[in-house]
Order: sequence, then structure tokens, then C-alpha cells
Amino acid sequence: MADKNIRLTLSYDGTRYHGWQRQKNAMTLQATIEDKLKLMLETPVTLISSGRTDAGVHALGQVCHFLTSSTLDPEVIERGLNALLPDDVVIVRAEYVPLDFHARYDAKRKTYEYRIWNRKEPDLFRRAFLWHVPVPLSVERMGQCLTLLKGTHDFSSFRSSGSGNHDPVRTLFSADIHGASGGEIFFTFEGNGFLRHMVRNMVGTLVQVGLNKMDMDTFAAILPAKNRQKAGMKAPAKGLFLVRVAY
Amino acid sequence: MADKNIRLTLSYDGTRYHGWQRQKNAMTLQATIEDKLKLMLETPVTLISSGRTDAGVHALGQVCHFLTSSTLDPEVIERGLNALLPDDVVIVRAEYVPLDFHARYDAKRKTYEYRIWNRKEPDLFRRAFLWHVPVPLSVERMGQCLTLLKGTHDFSSFRSSGSGNHDPVRTLFSADIHGASGGEIFFTFEGNGFLRHMVRNMVGTLVQVGLNKMDMDTFAAILPAKNRQKAGMKAPAKGLFLVRVAY
Repeated sequence: MADKNIRLTLSYDGTRYHGWQRQKNAMTLQATIEDKLKLMLETPVTLISSGRTDAGVHALGQVCHFLTSSTLDPEVIERGLNALLPDDVVIVRAEYVPLDFHARYDAKRKTYEYRIWNRKEPDLFRRAFLWHVPVPLSVERMGQCLTLLKGTHDFSSFRSSGSGNHDPVRTLFSADIHGASGGEIFFTFEGNGFLRHMVRNMVGTLVQVGLNKMDMDTFAAILPAKNRQKAGMKAPAKGLFLVRVAY
Repeated sequence: MADKNIRLTLSYDGTRYHGWQRQKNAMTLQATIEDKLKLMLETPVTLISSGRTDAGVHALGQVCHFLTSSTLDPEVIERGLNALLPDDVVIVRAEYVPLDFHARYDAKRKTYEYRIWNRKEPDLFRRAFLWHVPVPLSVERMGQCLTLLKGTHDFSSFRSSGSGNHDPVRTLFSADIHGASGGEIFFTFEGNGFLRHMVRNMVGTLVQVGLNKMDMDTFAAILPAKNRQKAGMKAPAKGLFLVRVAY
């Protein structure tokens, strides 16, 4: 009987993966890690993450857990997994947690970062981890719109379809923008949860404001409309990072 | 008749390429760029670079030239190439140069950088551009050995075989090391030319000194020996960048 619960904190480059969740005929993070755990523990294991990440999305600090009867020390599991896993997945920490810890249900806050490269020339060596927007963006205009997103709202307008009918109300504790002189523009969102494609839909729409393709009154009308048609484009997956999950 | 000479300055991520030089049945940078130029100019073109880079080596500022009778403006060629080329090659600049400019023969100085990541954990998102050395290196010991490499020497001991019998004397104008607190250790070499695998052989040997696997007297005896057997291992290609070529 499974009498231990092990929590994994992990980073990954999502470029090659069809997202977190196991699928038939597609390489996913869950399947890749579960397969290596099965090799080490000699019995199948089910990994439960804080939430799915979509195809192409990266993680600095994703969290998942699994129940096991193995007597292998978590440190040994960490080292073993890192030896077996491909070089685009790194286990940062493996540790015992109480048997009733649940990576999804117990997640209190998540932080996402979205990274844009805002210069004419691409950043060749980080092109897999930045959305290249070659036309100058107004950090000020985007920052003003960001403040409208903070707090507790019905985020239906920024939810992609195909995500069921569950409660669309979420709380954003913070929504920040940081523009560095070199060309990096980083968005950071901390919230109690995120709807499907919510960060990418918010960032894509903010970029339209930053490009002066959407005025700020139009942006302000999006949340109250509770209608996905009102928001703008979805930003590409490769700029998105799940930074950490707090419990 | 070719009555114009165009110089290209370019950056590339060498990961996918079998080096610069055109080869049968292998993807190379020369072939990739020549093929796109042929599409644009509707006639074959021969690119001459400042020198070959090996498989997996990157460039921030490689230089090459080609002769042409095309009346297309260099700026148009730059934009057209960037539209046609895969996203791991970027033309930084295209410009007219005198007809007698030669990218290889006229190169006066080249600067190479070698990038090491010296922490236990890998840097997941830069793993293709750093040599991961997980055991702590002594920057001080490596720096002391570096000073021995500066100046004009017969570098036979750091030349890989298969490079012919040409003159092995080269001048290193500078050889520096910079260790940042985060884990980056960057070497910079500026010289009038470099022998085959010379930077990688020097860095691999310096790392053995930095790991205390080679003492400094042994290192000091390498250059005078003029014997490749005396030097240490060759560092991997992925940490090496051709930074710039001066004319």
C-alpha cells in the first residue's frame, strides 16, 4: 500500500512537449516523468500536478505529487530522475509531504511570467523563450491597463473556449510589467488560479494596446463584457513560464 | 560579370548545423545561406567566410562576403535573407565593400568567447549555449594559467590533428576570464588567428586546472612541448562563440 507522498518541484523547457497531461500518441511531461519513475520504482505511478501547462509552455517551478510505497529516499529519487530524464526537464527538489497533500487542490497561489522581446532584431539565443514583438510597445499604456486586471473578477473574456463551464471568477493578487532598457518586457501575474489560456489572452490583448491597435477604453470594457470575442489575440505559448506554486 | 562585393555580418545558433563549410549530405551554414541567396539573386553565389566554425559552434558576429552582379540593395538582401532563413540564423548587416575585400585573407583579429555554467544544477534554458561543469572551478588558478597563453607562441600543443601542417604560430592579444557570482564563467580570447579546435583545447585544459586535476607547472609545460598529447581534453562545441572579426 502507498504509505508515502512525495512532492516534486521541477523546471522544464516545454518546447518539445504537447503540454503536461498524458495523451495518446503525443509526448507529454506527465508521461515522460511517470515513465522514468516507473523504471526507478518498478511499479506504475500517477503524477498529479498543480495544473496542466499547455503545449510549448515552460516551467521554472511546477509542483506535482505521487503516492508510493517505495522506501527510496526522496534525494535518491531526485538524483535518479535527473539522470534518467532528458535534458529539458530538471527535478529541482523531491521531498516527503503529508499523505493528504494534493498538488492541485492545495495550491493557494500561482505565479506566471510572460516574456516579450521588443526589439527589431530577434534575440537568437533565447528565441524559444521569448515572444518577439519587433514594433515598439508602450510599457506605460500596458501598465495602466494591467491595473484594471488586478483584484477579483469574472475573467470569462480572457478564457479560451473548450474549458467547460466552471466558475470563471479568479483573483489576481498582482499584475506587473517590467520593461528593461535592452528590449525585455516581462509581465508577472500572481493569482489564486488561472482559466484556460488566461495569461496568454491577457498578454496578447495588452500587446494590442501597447501597439496602439486598441485604445484603453476598449480594453477597460473587456472584463465587464464577459465575452471572449471582446478580448484580443492569444500570445504564443513559448513566452509563458509557470514560475511557482504556493501552498 | 560580378562587379559588386557584399559583406554579411551574421549571428547563428550552430546547434543544428554541421559547421560552416558546405558538405555533401549534411546541413551546413554556408549551404543554407548560399541556397537562400541563390533564390533571391536567381544565380548561384559562393560565400567566403572569415573562417570555418565547427559543428555546434555559435556566432555572434561571423563575417563573409560574396561577389555579385545583382543590383539589389544590400538592405533589401538583408531583409530578404532574414525572411527566408530559418530562425537560427540572423543577418545582422549587409553592406557594399571594395571589390578586393576578402573575408578570410583580410581578417586581422578574431574574438572568441567560451561560456561555462559552473553550478551543480544545469541552466535549463541556456543549456545549448553553455558547457555545464557541475563541480566548482577555481577562477583564480585558471586565470593564472591564462596569462601564460597571451602573446606569440607555437600553439601546436593546442591544435587538433587533421589540420594540415601550416604554421602553428599565433598571437593572442588577450586571454581573459570573468567569473560572475551566479555561476557563469566566460573566457574571452582575441588573436590574429586560431588553429583547429585551439580555443576548445585551451579551455578544456584550463578546466582541468580549475578542477585541480592538473597542476599549474604541468600546464606551464604544455606550450613549450609543442605536442598535443600534453594538453588536456577538448571542451564541447556548444559553449563556443565567434564574437567578432576585425579587419
